[in-house]
Amino acid sequence: MNQTPDRSIGVAVLGMGNVGSEVVRIIDENAADLRARVGAPVEIRGIAVRDLGKPRKVAQDLLTDDPAALVARDDVDIVVELMGGIDPARGLIRAALESGKSVVTANKALLAEYTGELATAAADAKVDLYFEAAVAGAIPVVRPLMQSLAGDTVERVAGIVNGTTNYILSAMDETGADYADSLAEAGRLGYAEADPTADVEGYDAAAKAAILASIAFHTRVTAADVHREGISSVTASDLAAAKKFDCTVKLLSICERVHDADGRQRISARVYPALIPLSHPLATVNGAFNAVVVEAENAGRLMFYGQGAGGSPTASAVLGDMVMAARNKVHGGRGPLESTYASLPIAPVDDVPTRYYVSMKVADKPGVLSQVAGEFSKRSVSIAAVRQEGAGEDARLIVVTHRAPDRAQSETVAALEDMDAVIKVSSVLRLEGTDD
Amino acid sequence: MNQTPDRSIGVAVLGMGNVGSEVVRIIDENAADLRARVGAPVEIRGIAVRDLGKPRKVAQDLLTDDPAALVARDDVDIVVELMGGIDPARGLIRAALESGKSVVTANKALLAEYTGELATAAADAKVDLYFEAAVAGAIPVVRPLMQSLAGDTVERVAGIVNGTTNYILSAMDETGADYADSLAEAGRLGYAEADPTADVEGYDAAAKAAILASIAFHTRVTAADVHREGISSVTASDLAAAKKFDCTVKLLSICERVHDADGRQRISARVYPALIPLSHPLATVNGAFNAVVVEAENAGRLMFYGQGAGGSPTASAVLGDMVMAARNKVHGGRGPLESTYASLPIAPVDDVPTRYYVSMKVADKPGVLSQVAGEFSKRSVSIAAVRQEGAGEDARLIVVTHRAPDRAQSETVAALEDMDAVIKVSSVLRLEGTDD
Repeated sequence: MNQTPDRSIGVAVLGMGNVGSEVVRIIDENAADLRARVGAPVEIRGIAVRDLGKPRKVAQDLLTDDPAALVARDDVDIVVELMGGIDPARGLIRAALESGKSVVTANKALLAEYTGELATAAADAKVDLYFEAAVAGAIPVVRPLMQSLAGDTVERVAGIVNGTTNYILSAMDETGADYADSLAEAGRLGYAEADPTADVEGYDAAAKAAILASIAFHTRVTAADVHREGISSVTASDLAAAKKFDCTVKLLSICERVHDADGRQRISARVYPALIPLSHPLATVNGAFNAVVVEAENAGRLMFYGQGAGGSPTASAVLGDMVMAARNKVHGGRGPLESTYASLPIAPVDDVPTRYYVSMKVADKPGVLSQVAGEFSKRSVSIAAVRQEGAGEDARLIVVTHRAPDRAQSETVAALEDMDAVIKVSSVLRLEGTDD
Repeated sequence: MNQTPDRSIGVAVLGMGNVGSEVVRIIDENAADLRARVGAPVEIRGIAVRDLGKPRKVAQDLLTDDPAALVARDDVDIVVELMGGIDPARGLIRAALESGKSVVTANKALLAEYTGELATAAADAKVDLYFEAAVAGAIPVVRPLMQSLAGDTVERVAGIVNGTTNYILSAMDETGADYADSLAEAGRLGYAEADPTADVEGYDAAAKAAILASIAFHTRVTAADVHREGISSVTASDLAAAKKFDCTVKLLSICERVHDADGRQRISARVYPALIPLSHPLATVNGAFNAVVVEAENAGRLMFYGQGAGGSPTASAVLGDMVMAARNKVHGGRGPLESTYASLPIAPVDDVPTRYYVSMKVADKPGVLSQVAGEFSKRSVSIAAVRQEGAGEDARLIVVTHRAPDRAQSETVAALEDMDAVIKVSSVLRLEGTDD
C-alpha cells in the first residue's frame, strides 16, 4: 500500500531545546522508518532558534532566527512548535494553520488558554492540530481520550501530570525531608527549574487539567476554570500523618463530571495536593513518572503510566503526532476536530463534594474533641476518623471527614481556626481516590 | 464545526452476545452524544443473530438471521462484527469491506490469521478496519501503538491480555490453591468458559500477541508465528517457590525485537507462564484485569491498565472505533492503514535469550549440586541463584539462571532429566521482567 509520493513532507521545527533537539535527532536517525510509515520522505526544512550563534549538532543552514519566515515557506507542510509560552507561539501557530499547514505542539500553557481559537483555525483550514505531548509527555492520553473513548461517557480523569512536584513529594515521602530541602534537591538533579513557580504552584498541572477536561467532557475548559493549589505548603509532618492513614500525598489534576441533585451536569477541574490511599494505583507513581487514571461509564477504570517529561519521551509523542499529520498530508483525511458540543458549565470547587484531612494543634484539655466535632456536624460534615496525638504543648488532633460540599469543609476549617481550643490549624489537605 | 449531514450513518451489528448487546444498548442510550460526536445520527439498521426466537431487549424488526443480506444493504455504512470465530465472520467482513463499508471487529482469532487479507481489502476500498477491542478489551493499546508511537521504535510489548488465566494464577497466588481448583472456581464465577482450552492453553493470548507484534514491528505476524505454552502445568508449589524469589507467576504475551549479533533484527512473539519480580508493574495486575507494558526507544516504558474483558468494557472499545469510522464517513479521510514495511523475520524461541527457573526433586547426597551446575555450565548457561530445600525423599533443588539462548536452557533441562541424581524435574518456568 505504499503510494509513490509526489514530493517529500516538509517540517518546520520551532524551538531547539531539550525536546526540539530530540525531535530533530530522531527525524534524522529514523528517516527510513519515517518515510515508510508516512508514505513519503519527511524532511526538515528549517529549525527556528533564538540564538543562531549557539553551537548545535545540526547543519547550520537549517537554522534560522526568523520563525515567521520559516512557517510561511511554501515547502513546509507541518509546523512542530516547541518554543513554549504564549507569544510568539500563538501567532506562529495561527499563521501556520491559516496557510494550510498542520501543527504539532507540546505547548500546554498556550493550549490551556487558546485551544478554541487554534482549533477553529485548524478546522477552517481542514488541517490537523495535534498536541499529545502537551499532557504527560510520552504517555498516550490525549489520543485515547479523544478517539478510543469517543463512544463512552467519561466520568473522571485524575492524574499525576507534573514530574517536578511528584519528584518532590516522593522524596518527602521516602526520606522524611521537608519541602524546601526536597525542592532544592530536585533543582540540583535537574527535576526543578531555577524558578519552579509554574510547577510547584500547580500552574502546569492546571493547564494540563484544562486540556484533559476539554477533551473528556466535550467542553471548552481553560486554565482559568481550574481551581489550583500548589504543594509549597505541604510539610514533612503531612506526609508522616498521611502514612498513619495508609495514604500518601500527591499533586493531582482532577477533572470530574459533577452530577447535581436536579439531574444537571457540571464539570469540576481542579489541582491540589491530596492524600490518596496507598492501595490506589496513583499512590505507587513515584519520582518523575506520570500517570493518568480515566474512569468511564463503560470502560471502567483505565490507567496510563510512563515518563511524563524529558527530551526523548516528549519527542516520542511529538513524532507520533507528526507521523499522523504527515500521513494525512499524503493520504488525505485528518484527525478528529475539537469537540465542544456538550458545553457543560464549570462547577466552582465550593460545590464539589470532597473529603478533608485537617491537622491541628489543640489545647490539651477535656472537651476539645467534642467542640471540634461540633463544628463539623454543624455544617453536616460527617467525620470518618480522628487521631489524637502528643500531649501538653504538642497535643494534636487529626480529623478525616466523609464527603461533603467543599464549602462546608472549608467553612468548618475557618471556624476551627477561630476556636479558643484550637491553637493552630497546621495543615489542611483533601483526601481523594476513595469510593465513599 | 457541526456539519449538517445528508443522512444518518447506518450500522449493522453482527452477533448479539455479551458485547453485542452492550453495543446495541449504548448506541440507543447515547444517541444524542454519538450524533454530536460523529456529526450525524448513528442508526442501527439491523442485528444479525443465530437464533431469532430468543427473547432480546431490542425491537424485533431489527433482528435477522441473514447476516450476509444485512451486510449487503445499501444503507449500511459500518459493520460491527462481534460473532467471533473464523467463519462466517471472515467472509462477511470481506464482503463489507469490498462494498465500501468500514468494519469494526473484536475478533482476535480472525485477525491473528487473516489481518493481511482483510487489511488489503480495506486499503483497496479506502475504508477503515478497526479492532481496538480485539486486544485487552477496554484498554486502548492498538491505537496508541499504531498512532501515538508511530514516530518511535518499539523494542518490546509484554502484556497480561487474558483475564481467565490471570484470574486463575492470581487465585493460586493468593490462596495457595492448585490449578484444577482455581480453574473450577473461575468457571463457577463466570471467568472461565465451559471449554477453557483457548484461554488456559494460551491460544487467546497468542492471537493477541500476533496482533500486537504486527503493529509494533510493522510486520505481518500470525498466530502460527507465536510460540505458545499454557498454564495448565503450573502448580501451587511453583507459585510458592516464586514467592521465595520475590516473584509471582503470570501468563505473558511477549513481543520482542531481537537484536542478533550480526546487527540484523528479528521478532520474537511468545506466550508462556513466567516468573516476574513483584516489583515489576505487571506483577500487581490481578484477577480479570489486563495490562500491557510497551518499551520504546524514546518513550521509555509505558503501561496501559484496565478491564480486558466483559460486555461493557469491550463495547466501549468497539464504540470508540465505531465513532472514529463514522466520523470518517461524515468528514472524509480514514485511519492508518496496515503497516508491514519492516517485514522482519520471526526468531524461533530457541534463539531468544531467556532466563529459566527449574525446580527438581533430587537425591539427597553430596555432589548433586555440583553435577547439576555442571550441566548448566557445559552449555554456557550461568546460574543466578540456587535454593536447596527439604531433605531425604523431599530434597529439592531450585535453580534460576541468567539470560542465555532458550535452546541452551531447554537442552540443559533435558539433560537434567536424564541425570541419576535428579529424580524428577518437577517444574520449569521462564523468568521475565528483569534487566539482566
